[in-house]
Amino acid sequence: MKDFLYSLELKVRDYECDLQSVVNNAAYLNYLEHTRHEFLLSVGLDFTKLSEMNLSPMVYRADIIYKTSLVSGDIFISTINVSRKGNLKILFHQKIYRKKDNKLMISATITKVIVKDGKAYNPDFYFKAINQE
Amino acid sequence: MKDFLYSLELKVRDYECDLQSVVNNAAYLNYLEHTRHEFLLSVGLDFTKLSEMNLSPMVYRADIIYKTSLVSGDIFISTINVSRKGNLKILFHQKIYRKKDNKLMISATITKVIVKDGKAYNPDFYFKAINQE
Amino acid sequence: MKDFLYSLELKVRDYECDLQSVVNNAAYLNYLEHTRHEFLLSVGLDFTKLSEMNLSPMVYRADIIYKTSLVSGDIFISTINVSRKGNLKILFHQKIYRKKDNKLMISATITKVIVKDGKAYNPDFYFKAINQE
Amino acid sequence: MKDFLYSLELKVRDYECDLQSVVNNAAYLNYLEHTRHEFLLSVGLDFTKLSEMNLSPMVYRADIIYKTSLVSGDIFISTINVSRKGNLKILFHQKIYRKKDNKLMISATITKVIVKDGKAYNPDFYFKAINQE
Repeated sequence: MKDFLYSLELKVRDYECDLQSVVNNAAYLNYLEHTRHEFLLSVGLDFTKLSEMNLSPMVYRADIIYKTSLVSGDIFISTINVSRKGNLKILFHQKIYRKKDNKLMISATITKVIVKDGKAYNPDFYFKAINQE
Repeated sequence: MKDFLYSLELKVRDYECDLQSVVNNAAYLNYLEHTRHEFLLSVGLDFTKLSEMNLSPMVYRADIIYKTSLVSGDIFISTINVSRKGNLKILFHQKIYRKKDNKLMISATITKVIVKDGKAYNPDFYFKAINQE
Repeated sequence: MKDFLYSLELKVRDYECDLQSVVNNAAYLNYLEHTRHEFLLSVGLDFTKLSEMNLSPMVYRADIIYKTSLVSGDIFISTINVSRKGNLKILFHQKIYRKKDNKLMISATITKVIVKDGKAYNPDFYFKAINQE
Repeated sequence: MKDFLYSLELKVRDYECDLQSVVNNAAYLNYLEHTRHEFLLSVGLDFTKLSEMNLSPMVYRADIIYKTSLVSGDIFISTINVSRKGNLKILFHQKIYRKKDNKLMISATITKVIVKDGKAYNPDFYFKAINQE
């Protein structure tokens, strides 16, 4: 039933909460990015390495459904799955669950492309690294 | 040809840029929220007022397409249009254009619902305020 | 040689880094706040409780010396000590060390006062909670 | 009575406010940085130029007194003065005033050094640019 490749446990920080006493919508993008980078690091794909190869992974699309709001004190599990769309797009399927009751807080699909010299670059090396995990 | 109800001119702040020397993906969510709040304020719908009515506008969905990256020094125009979906959903159609060449940087649809006592609340008052502008 | 009351291990998140490829100066304030709140929570002083007592802890002063910059990938230890200044001020002595070599990255003194009904409030209960730890 | 070299008018954005319904302490560091960068740009010292000269301006110290809290909706004026300390340190004297009543919200001294190849670099060029304004 483990439907993800990688997961990270994090805790809400009070400065991430806003006037409405919930985690601000933008902060989830931070959580999602941090989870992706930690995941990629875990399979040997870090930003420094990609930079040396003159490759820039760019977010092309973000589609997020906010189910329930995280609040101060909440611990949560941020999970990732990956798939490919067409030749060039990498889809990160990301979910965040509140730890205490496993409730789904947000569900997101983040589409990335790898850019080299201003053009989309074939992400075969990406999927090779991920699948060797 | 003016296809928006409201627009706001802003400038990239260097702390919004990240390791890749472009505005971080999450920072656009901040721009979009700030534009929505300024727009709503301009039609008399501020957070204090809504709070007094015990109403909580919540982001339910965010769908963002990143076309081109804003960088340090860029001035941009953030525009808003609004439509209704079904009875309860408010759609904010938001675009960000780079000022110097009017190039579209991002295009987003943010779906909000108004919550009162844990249930979705009819947003008629919202559209009334917006259309009276 | 343990010269702190509490410590927290954290890792730099890439979105906290800026154009200069180091953690942005403002992000350290986030780290320091999160460490204080986690520390206070560990001795039973959470924001909800204080709110119920109508007490607002406010930062009155922040004095920070930046020694070396944290960068992407760094793990660090954030430590706290507390002392009292005069009757009303609480001083948080906070240091951040890079984990891999125990190098001091920043050293800060954050001065807080507890405000109740617009006036400074005696923080005896604060020190009582801390010392009972 | 104009006791500053440069000033910038800004408005609080709701996402900068936290659980306590005031601008979060760390957000002021963002305001101060943005004001410095805009000021430096106005005298021809932008980050790109400095980078080309292989120079990294680094914050060495930040001393901030928080007088009153900015809240949602506040417009404020962020002012800068500059002085030199010793041979190598640049002091930015920065104040933030609430626009509606000219009340001082925060007062800060930010100490910077210019680093080149890991060593502090003589900031004569900096003061020359500033004084030619």
